[in-house]
Amino acid sequence: MQGNVVVQKIERADPVIIKALGECGVATVHEAQGRRGLLADYMRPIQQDVTIAGSAITISGAAGDNWMMHVAIEQCQEGDIMVFAPTSPSNFGFFGDLLATSALSRGVAGLIIEGGVRDTRDLRQMNFPVWAKHVFSQGTIKETLGSVNITMTCANEIIHPGDIIIADDDGVVVVRREEAEAVLAEAQARVAREEEKRIRMENGELGLDIYNMRGRLKEKGLKYV
Amino acid sequence: MQGNVVVQKIERADPVIIKALGECGVATVHEAQGRRGLLADYMRPIQQDVTIAGSAITISGAAGDNWMMHVAIEQCQEGDIMVFAPTSPSNFGFFGDLLATSALSRGVAGLIIEGGVRDTRDLRQMNFPVWAKHVFSQGTIKETLGSVNITMTCANEIIHPGDIIIADDDGVVVVRREEAEAVLAEAQARVAREEEKRIRMENGELGLDIYNMRGRLKEKGLKYV
Amino acid sequence: MQGNVVVQKIERADPVIIKALGECGVATVHEAQGRRGLLADYMRPIQQDVTIAGSAITISGAAGDNWMMHVAIEQCQEGDIMVFAPTSPSNFGFFGDLLATSALSRGVAGLIIEGGVRDTRDLRQMNFPVWAKHVFSQGTIKETLGSVNITMTCANEIIHPGDIIIADDDGVVVVRREEAEAVLAEAQARVAREEEKRIRMENGELGLDIYNMRGRLKEKGLKYV
Amino acid sequence: MQGNVVVQKIERADPVIIKALGECGVATVHEAQGRRGLLADYMRPIQQDVTIAGSAITISGAAGDNWMMHVAIEQCQEGDIMVFAPTSPSNFGFFGDLLATSALSRGVAGLIIEGGVRDTRDLRQMNFPVWAKHVFSQGTIKETLGSVNITMTCANEIIHPGDIIIADDDGVVVVRREEAEAVLAEAQARVAREEEKRIRMENGELGLDIYNMRGRLKEKGLKYV
Amino acid sequence: MQGNVVVQKIERADPVIIKALGECGVATVHEAQGRRGLLADYMRPIQQDVTIAGSAITISGAAGDNWMMHVAIEQCQEGDIMVFAPTSPSNFGFFGDLLATSALSRGVAGLIIEGGVRDTRDLRQMNFPVWAKHVFSQGTIKETLGSVNITMTCANEIIHPGDIIIADDDGVVVVRREEAEAVLAEAQARVAREEEKRIRMENGELGLDIYNMRGRLKEKGLKYV
Amino acid sequence: MQGNVVVQKIERADPVIIKALGECGVATVHEAQGRRGLLADYMRPIQQDVTIAGSAITISGAAGDNWMMHVAIEQCQEGDIMVFAPTSPSNFGFFGDLLATSALSRGVAGLIIEGGVRDTRDLRQMNFPVWAKHVFSQGTIKETLGSVNITMTCANEIIHPGDIIIADDDGVVVVRREEAEAVLAEAQARVAREEEKRIRMENGELGLDIYNMRGRLKEKGLKYV
Repeated sequence: MQGNVVVQKIERADPVIIKALGECGVATVHEAQGRRGLLADYMRPIQQDVTIAGSAITISGAAGDNWMMHVAIEQCQEGDIMVFAPTSPSNFGFFGDLLATSALSRGVAGLIIEGGVRDTRDLRQMNFPVWAKHVFSQGTIKETLGSVNITMTCANEIIHPGDIIIADDDGVVVVRREEAEAVLAEAQARVAREEEKRIRMENGELGLDIYNMRGRLKEKGLKYV
Repeated sequence: MQGNVVVQKIERADPVIIKALGECGVATVHEAQGRRGLLADYMRPIQQDVTIAGSAITISGAAGDNWMMHVAIEQCQEGDIMVFAPTSPSNFGFFGDLLATSALSRGVAGLIIEGGVRDTRDLRQMNFPVWAKHVFSQGTIKETLGSVNITMTCANEIIHPGDIIIADDDGVVVVRREEAEAVLAEAQARVAREEEKRIRMENGELGLDIYNMRGRLKEKGLKYV
Repeated sequence: MQGNVVVQKIERADPVIIKALGECGVATVHEAQGRRGLLADYMRPIQQDVTIAGSAITISGAAGDNWMMHVAIEQCQEGDIMVFAPTSPSNFGFFGDLLATSALSRGVAGLIIEGGVRDTRDLRQMNFPVWAKHVFSQGTIKETLGSVNITMTCANEIIHPGDIIIADDDGVVVVRREEAEAVLAEAQARVAREEEKRIRMENGELGLDIYNMRGRLKEKGLKYV
Repeated sequence: MQGNVVVQKIERADPVIIKALGECGVATVHEAQGRRGLLADYMRPIQQDVTIAGSAITISGAAGDNWMMHVAIEQCQEGDIMVFAPTSPSNFGFFGDLLATSALSRGVAGLIIEGGVRDTRDLRQMNFPVWAKHVFSQGTIKETLGSVNITMTCANEIIHPGDIIIADDDGVVVVRREEAEAVLAEAQARVAREEEKRIRMENGELGLDIYNMRGRLKEKGLKYV
Repeated sequence: MQGNVVVQKIERADPVIIKALGECGVATVHEAQGRRGLLADYMRPIQQDVTIAGSAITISGAAGDNWMMHVAIEQCQEGDIMVFAPTSPSNFGFFGDLLATSALSRGVAGLIIEGGVRDTRDLRQMNFPVWAKHVFSQGTIKETLGSVNITMTCANEIIHPGDIIIADDDGVVVVRREEAEAVLAEAQARVAREEEKRIRMENGELGLDIYNMRGRLKEKGLKYV
Repeated sequence: MQGNVVVQKIERADPVIIKALGECGVATVHEAQGRRGLLADYMRPIQQDVTIAGSAITISGAAGDNWMMHVAIEQCQEGDIMVFAPTSPSNFGFFGDLLATSALSRGVAGLIIEGGVRDTRDLRQMNFPVWAKHVFSQGTIKETLGSVNITMTCANEIIHPGDIIIADDDGVVVVRREEAEAVLAEAQARVAREEEKRIRMENGELGLDIYNMRGRLKEKGLKYV
């Protein structure tokens, strides 16, 4: 059986692609890759109006134990996103202002955590964005080993190290590194198509007409009374 | 059995009454109509410090299917509020910035949705207020018919088309169109009564004395020790 | 069996200590007293970026009944914090702008409530901070006696009257009055220790080195690959 | 605004139709009426392997107040089903062995309650079936009026007095009285169709072939690898 | 600040009183002591049709750590009930068939646990009754000290060592040792009063008449239509 | 981006090993593989006292759409276990008595479903065991493609086709096919070790002595008072 490991070398996607995916936003990227990849809806931001995109440093640790956070920070590069999931549910505060200070000094772009976070006011003031399942101060221990940069689940999605994470006010989506370019192309095409529709809608045209829905609605039996 | 219909003509309450109800706020209106009409407490605003009031355009659709949203917008008039409930629970993102653009062009005042919403940052920036059960990006399909402007339940309350909806930071309340005038009278009377009490309380008088509670507390057996 | 009482005279901790505990914040105080005393994580603030600390006025009342709130306000002194728990779960809106007006006139510092609160927009504008389990407008009655300043549970923690409550964006923690001085000393020591580490981390040092973790990680079997 | 009423005379469906709907079961009836009418999935039976069907006596009462239960029993006839929903969520034990004794003496077939029930062991031994949101002993009061036999919501469905309720191990479904006959015809046809398929499946035929799915799967792009 | 202790000598109530309280059942005992003492409704039995009553051995341990269970068993006497609460929420399986074997050999009557339990099928077969918040197998560690026989909270109620616990299909209630005799007297009186009512109800009398409710209902304004 | 596929040929573990793992049970197997592999605790059996073990046939489908169930049954062999997860949360009844009939005719050992199941009474009578997140009748459609026998998540664990699933009253655990033999060896050794301890405990020995805990407890500072 697999022991506890830290994978030191992972592949990352092209920063230009990552940045461009971030500009498309969570909803668009999710649509662009066939409506896949959304983390569970209990992953909520502790701040408002912030979008991040980066390469996942995956961190698997025991419930109530944040030891692997320290191990993981050493593996982070500028622009990476830390993704933590405990091996069993835990609302403990695995991450606070000290770890954020350390992460920021490495250029980490943010944290996705299927657990608890604390010092949330400080984190907002430091401009360190977090998407978490819980906000709770309960202190953690440093007793049990975990792993860094292994494939794992977080909020019911599979995350590989180096996958691209995009997070905004709507939640979090993961894009496979190998698919990033294709997803971006489709996402940007989608943005363009939506822009055109937005203008028509602003001018009062209805989706019923823009999408040509009236015929199919009638055919299915919708009755206007 | 009833098929899928769009009721095109509905009665609406007097805009003056609707506006005045909005000024009273959710808590007061709910009290004024005998502590009835509150939608379940999981209906939360995506924005802060916004109150809306308007006539309900009711929209019933299948879980994960937002087709009827497009159909409903055509039925909306200036100041209406779209009220959507899926026929079975669904956290999908039934509504986003494009639909909001279309709704705004018709003068829709906001959305009440017992489901998911997405593009929440954009919606706030567009000043399109939403009260929702979920924030989630999951994309919907357009396959199954529903109905517009039928009587339905949303968040465990019955909503008729044309009922008045008031929503603020505390949640959402519904007022029957036929009762709107009477509810408003009682709500405004209540506001006036409360104003007087507020001044007395600001001056340090206690509710115990203002409401004459001491005798009844003693009679029921409360002991001061 | 114990009847319903209002204990009029309670001991309070030294205001200087209370204020200093507030400056340490919830997470630090909780750590300083051995990772104890956090109220359940469903106790959430209705405002952002506010910290309070004060002596607990405990209020036990029936579900859906806020009568004892009025009784309790008379027992409050400048800087006290009202702590309410219903004897059975209830999401009703036990507290709103009128009670807040009265509480503010007595100098009450805030409310901790394992139940519902309403008029949340007004409360924010009045600068009356609240940590609550629910936001809901449902009106309460005044029929059943409860007690004020008895030992009770709130959000799964025991609270005695006069215990110190600290609440911030992370949640709520309780400190026993008799332990306040010792907890403060440990909390302040902790703040000082953290400050030093923060500076080292800002300069790029890793927790792995600051806390001397590498040896123990290796010993436990962590493998770098 | 509507006061508190007890409607003493309600229409009921033909007992033969009600009984036959019960024999079809919840899932089949729900399908037969177009996948509508299911109460929320938190309505769970306190017993196993019991199905009931009957006419709804609707009961609306205050949270934590079971006064209207007593009022409602007088309105019940042989085979009726009591359907209770509080006007605001409450897990209190609104119903126990004494009320069940009274209900059984009137021939009541069971209880559907969007609240709490107690004495569950006794209720099972008395063969009084219950579907409830909560099991909890918390005692109720008798202070606030409600109504009997009005249209109301229960578990997010609209229930009219005299509607037909069917409940089994899967949950609870409501059928409009006026649609009962048509729904039964469709339900029975469905049972017959399913019986034929069951035999083919027992003999090893696949749904893929029985429902002729292979072509459409291929057309939509499913790939066998 | 209080360290970790095992209190070896606790007071227990008279076994005759404990047994008699058990015969009254949870709902009746809860009513008899003024509708107080119920643990939260998420405390559910893993077996059906079992009632226990006994003296509480209280056990406080860290989340995910069952070390104190072993310590506690040594403090148990014939008929005691183990009551465990973690200091922070945890669904781990703190207790299974081995611990049950040990507990049974000391005559322990059952377990109340605000956490997870495992080996539930074995526990039922061994006739070791459990009321738990979770059923989950996740294995625990033995690293952090806790305390045995201190006053603590479990499922939002205060439990002192030696308090009487009664648990049945409806949930769990706690009775203070000092109040046990008075509560029993009231509970037995209540049982007697209920028995008389039961007979009248079996004979078809209505609660409306037995409790003389008609006048008060009319006075409050209930209308029969 | 990956399309929708049915992988027809998967590797399965040795049936002798699978059967032996089932005899060890969920808790033991989970411990034997380093406390990993448990599906979330909301996966509950619809029956009691049943244990199954088999090879996973993984099924990924859209929320509210059970089309892939039919596709998957054709891929099942004697003793396989169907494992279904929707791509977005859904409480719909994806599986009922007809599909169970078909599955039983192929020798399928049971179903693990992170969604809803219906016809639960029939399924128990047919001896078709199910572990599900929901029991709900809501009917599904057959519109959207999914995949069979791909790697996916179910209840926050990664499942590969051919992984071994063990499920009993405590929940569900997954074992990697490649690790099955090693896990079994450790699980059986654990069962043997536990058997010996059980006998000692039955004879009244304490875990404190069997595991030699007294010294370490004292060293950590536990005080007996």
